[in-house]
Amino acid sequence: MSARRLPIEYADASPQVRAVYDDIMTTRKTDWVNDFWKVLAHDPATLSRIWSNIKQVMGPGTLDPLTKELIYLAVSVSNGCLYCIASHGAAARNKGMTEGQYSELLAIVGLANETNRLVTALEVPVDERWR
Amino acid sequence: MSARRLPIEYADASPQVRAVYDDIMTTRKTDWVNDFWKVLAHDPATLSRIWSNIKQVMGPGTLDPLTKELIYLAVSVSNGCLYCIASHGAAARNKGMTEGQYSELLAIVGLANETNRLVTALEVPVDERWR
Amino acid sequence: MSARRLPIEYADASPQVRAVYDDIMTTRKTDWVNDFWKVLAHDPATLSRIWSNIKQVMGPGTLDPLTKELIYLAVSVSNGCLYCIASHGAAARNKGMTEGQYSELLAIVGLANETNRLVTALEVPVDERWR
Amino acid sequence: MSARRLPIEYADASPQVRAVYDDIMTTRKTDWVNDFWKVLAHDPATLSRIWSNIKQVMGPGTLDPLTKELIYLAVSVSNGCLYCIASHGAAARNKGMTEGQYSELLAIVGLANETNRLVTALEVPVDERWR
Amino acid sequence: MSARRLPIEYADASPQVRAVYDDIMTTRKTDWVNDFWKVLAHDPATLSRIWSNIKQVMGPGTLDPLTKELIYLAVSVSNGCLYCIASHGAAARNKGMTEGQYSELLAIVGLANETNRLVTALEVPVDERWR
Amino acid sequence: MSARRLPIEYADASPQVRAVYDDIMTTRKTDWVNDFWKVLAHDPATLSRIWSNIKQVMGPGTLDPLTKELIYLAVSVSNGCLYCIASHGAAARNKGMTEGQYSELLAIVGLANETNRLVTALEVPVDERWR
Repeated sequence: MSARRLPIEYADASPQVRAVYDDIMTTRKTDWVNDFWKVLAHDPATLSRIWSNIKQVMGPGTLDPLTKELIYLAVSVSNGCLYCIASHGAAARNKGMTEGQYSELLAIVGLANETNRLVTALEVPVDERWR
Repeated sequence: MSARRLPIEYADASPQVRAVYDDIMTTRKTDWVNDFWKVLAHDPATLSRIWSNIKQVMGPGTLDPLTKELIYLAVSVSNGCLYCIASHGAAARNKGMTEGQYSELLAIVGLANETNRLVTALEVPVDERWR
Repeated sequence: MSARRLPIEYADASPQVRAVYDDIMTTRKTDWVNDFWKVLAHDPATLSRIWSNIKQVMGPGTLDPLTKELIYLAVSVSNGCLYCIASHGAAARNKGMTEGQYSELLAIVGLANETNRLVTALEVPVDERWR
Repeated sequence: MSARRLPIEYADASPQVRAVYDDIMTTRKTDWVNDFWKVLAHDPATLSRIWSNIKQVMGPGTLDPLTKELIYLAVSVSNGCLYCIASHGAAARNKGMTEGQYSELLAIVGLANETNRLVTALEVPVDERWR
Repeated sequence: MSARRLPIEYADASPQVRAVYDDIMTTRKTDWVNDFWKVLAHDPATLSRIWSNIKQVMGPGTLDPLTKELIYLAVSVSNGCLYCIASHGAAARNKGMTEGQYSELLAIVGLANETNRLVTALEVPVDERWR
Repeated sequence: MSARRLPIEYADASPQVRAVYDDIMTTRKTDWVNDFWKVLAHDPATLSRIWSNIKQVMGPGTLDPLTKELIYLAVSVSNGCLYCIASHGAAARNKGMTEGQYSELLAIVGLANETNRLVTALEVPVDERWR
């Protein structure tokens, strides 16, 4: 018995799970589903719920699709989630992110983590102009 | 004796500190310096160092200025740094961020924090296509 | 010279360390000590201290043993400590946690990490009814 | 202009927002909606999405309702989200959590944060038995 | 009913709690107990356990007392625990920490948080020389 | 195309990058540059900026060089950055850190992470004496 869950491939998936895989492929215009979803599939309710969240949050809005991916990627970098960096990095590159832009993103995330600690520890009150 | 450092106003600042304040105001085209810098000024070497980092990282590059602020803001939201949310939120609004865009940013940061934990805990290996 | 410490096996352990290993096995009704303790054993004072903390905190109380393990596991999932997820996941399964319950736990931890960020960033004051 | 969003009261809410407030009150069998939802209401799509997530994840399942709240509360304590501690603490007390149980929960969360760091930093590989 | 626990003063404390307060004052050569302990006192077992941990870990060892306080303070700054910064900052100042040294500590903590994110996100493997 | 950046060796580096490598070797009195810098070198502006920050922050000051390394190491342990633990652990050992001192550092970092959570969650106000 192990804590590690293996991906459930399309051929082995229930109709409910296949429906989510199909929607992922249709929405993303691809014939491929990455392993995060195939591991989540051990819990079909969560698979379906998380996918519908991603679809809503990352779908059309007032921020353009690349900017949305950059924000997702920046948080993943800050949290050190390597899989998420790989997946959202790939998505951002597909939407046009250059290596130079990724370098700038990394620099901002690093610096924000530095100044966030300084500001919090120094207990700087928010300036009146911003209240 | 207290751990809390109070802002050092321009009138009370050393020439070294005033030079940084002046550069902040010139760079930002404003006549005002926010309190983070005035508190950092108790340590002029750090004041000067952090400002030159911000100036370099947030200055002209391949990402546009608003996108850079959104990334900085997203990390600050994720880390819960309220002062940083106020300051980089104000900077982002000055560069055009709408309330609707801020809502989308918050939604992405929240969701990324959810999926980051799921992916990490489930130990999903990075898909071959992304290696 | 390396930062990596290897497990100290029972045969190679000092009497002080063996006494802790013995107490771990007796308390847990097992003939086996997992590697966390064998690595901690390089610092016998910490080995002894952490074990006595675990024994007190995870021992009989007003929360039942499974609930205690689920709480420990949830924090470990939230922090992304893979070894801790493996060890406390195994302990929870030994105490009856099903795969369906583990899926629910993961879903709660993920969602809590999402809403924790939203609430903190939005600076929602605590409602009067709860003060 | 401010980053701080104020609660939107029922009387001032749109029909879409009122429908969520109504569902919250019906589901929780109460005549009251706490301020987190009223602040989220500035973004009705997120209000509706987060509520439906909470309703699904915290609704009937294989873990009992109190255990679910304890897990949510433990993550919120670990993350230091004071509003979340107040709201999920109140929910847990409503479902029967005693002060003694809360003390035990706090002790587990604290200890898990200690051992999570030790285990991660010491790079203890997962024992073969758990793989 | 509230989640907020108030300090238990010496006059109102049980003999078990008073014994810990007494040991804190004797160990620290002071006639005063700070509020962290008085709030922890709602759970005497945790009060006693945490105090004995602090006493052991922060007591005489191979690192000098000031260095130990600086390490405790640095982690507290990194985690943004304002009470801990105040208490361990006061302890460090009592042991000789100057304002200039505190400024250097803050600079190191900030920079470490920056480089920690860069290194983790870039997945730099540990150099052979250090293995 | 991959998110993973490989080290840029001296022989393949631009003059700008070589100048930083040279300064690292000169400053550290070594003929070797560790891979963090060689990976950062894909973005020469960040390489140069981060190195000059490290040089300034970790250079001569009022804290002795070993204490500075211990603080950097403690934060890296707390954040679980394994590469940083290896590199700053090696630097600390070069400056005299013993295995016993490292054990004490680990114990302090672990305990601080425990008490930081307890204090924050319990919302203990800072004692008047420290304000």
